[in-house]
Amino acid sequence: MRKKTGARPETLVRRNEILRAATDVFGSKGSVNGTLAEIADQVGMTHAGILHHFGSKTQLLLEVLTYRDKTDVEHFTEQHIPGGIDLFRHLVNTAIANAERAGIVQAFVVLSGESVTAEHPARDYFAHRYATLREEIVEAFTQVCEERGITDPGPVRHAAASILAVMDGLQVQWLHDPSAVDLAESTRFAIEAIVSATLHPAASDLAE
Amino acid sequence: MRKKTGARPETLVRRNEILRAATDVFGSKGSVNGTLAEIADQVGMTHAGILHHFGSKTQLLLEVLTYRDKTDVEHFTEQHIPGGIDLFRHLVNTAIANAERAGIVQAFVVLSGESVTAEHPARDYFAHRYATLREEIVEAFTQVCEERGITDPGPVRHAAASILAVMDGLQVQWLHDPSAVDLAESTRFAIEAIVSATLHPAASDLAE
Repeated sequence: MRKKTGARPETLVRRNEILRAATDVFGSKGSVNGTLAEIADQVGMTHAGILHHFGSKTQLLLEVLTYRDKTDVEHFTEQHIPGGIDLFRHLVNTAIANAERAGIVQAFVVLSGESVTAEHPARDYFAHRYATLREEIVEAFTQVCEERGITDPGPVRHAAASILAVMDGLQVQWLHDPSAVDLAESTRFAIEAIVSATLHPAASDLAE
Repeated sequence: MRKKTGARPETLVRRNEILRAATDVFGSKGSVNGTLAEIADQVGMTHAGILHHFGSKTQLLLEVLTYRDKTDVEHFTEQHIPGGIDLFRHLVNTAIANAERAGIVQAFVVLSGESVTAEHPARDYFAHRYATLREEIVEAFTQVCEERGITDPGPVRHAAASILAVMDGLQVQWLHDPSAVDLAESTRFAIEAIVSATLHPAASDLAE
């Protein structure tokens, strides 16, 4: 899936080396302080060499994010994101995998935070990503409700946004203190809580 | 609460003007691209004038974050953060208030994302803030369980981290598309879901 048609194997290897170095640098310094010179240095290339492969810093930034998404998909399904209840299991599995790759998580946290600033190069990427994932989660809820004969679920749009939100937010707390926050288990608990409240709506414990 | 002992009223007014301008600038550009010169320009002062009031850019950044926290606390309780079930209502109310102040939310999102980078000036602030808030939520759960005779709650530490996480993550999606994400209602739904799963643990819908 990751292969570009016509690209030589050595080129693909080189591109992946650069992507890994860029993930490290953007993750540890952000996209403003993290420079192409530092990324070049990590892989023993020149600044111009990086530009030869990626064209611009912005393009490299976007490819770091896409690279992560592709790695996710390939790791778990080899073909596509699953639907129905398997989508929620897949999201829990993503958190389990993320707990083993702090560098990629850090790059994602920093870049998603930056992405809400004016004219940020990854603004459209994140807006599109969240919208697409919310739709996929809504569809998964619809499928599960059909399969399980649930005719009156809770607010699936709130649930879809909340599931993505809790995954993102736990990453921030985990990066700050991995001894206090269990990324995988807290994500599992929260996704199960939100799925349960959606499939089996109950009275609020917060009512006066 | 916000008053500094001994500071003259004009000084306090000036400081608050600077804090509001800094919130705008850090929110729209991040703390690296956002400069003291631009903040000074917004309030009709010099760069040196800003430093006279805040000492350094780092100090100003931290006071922007503290200013937000104080505003929250003052707005809802005038004295202290409530405990027990009222804490969860307070967190929902915070999201309702945040939906009316995108500038402050944006500054918070950008700075919390940046805060996981190496040697970021707000790193300790956020680590401490998350740890403190998690403890307060755990205590609130303990109090609610005692009051309601719940002897076998779900994992309150996962719940505490998840509630803060979902609040943070929804802010990011809401800033990207306020027409698609209802910050207040999605936050209410998610907090109710997590509180319910904690007070009334049930079988997982994700079990194979």
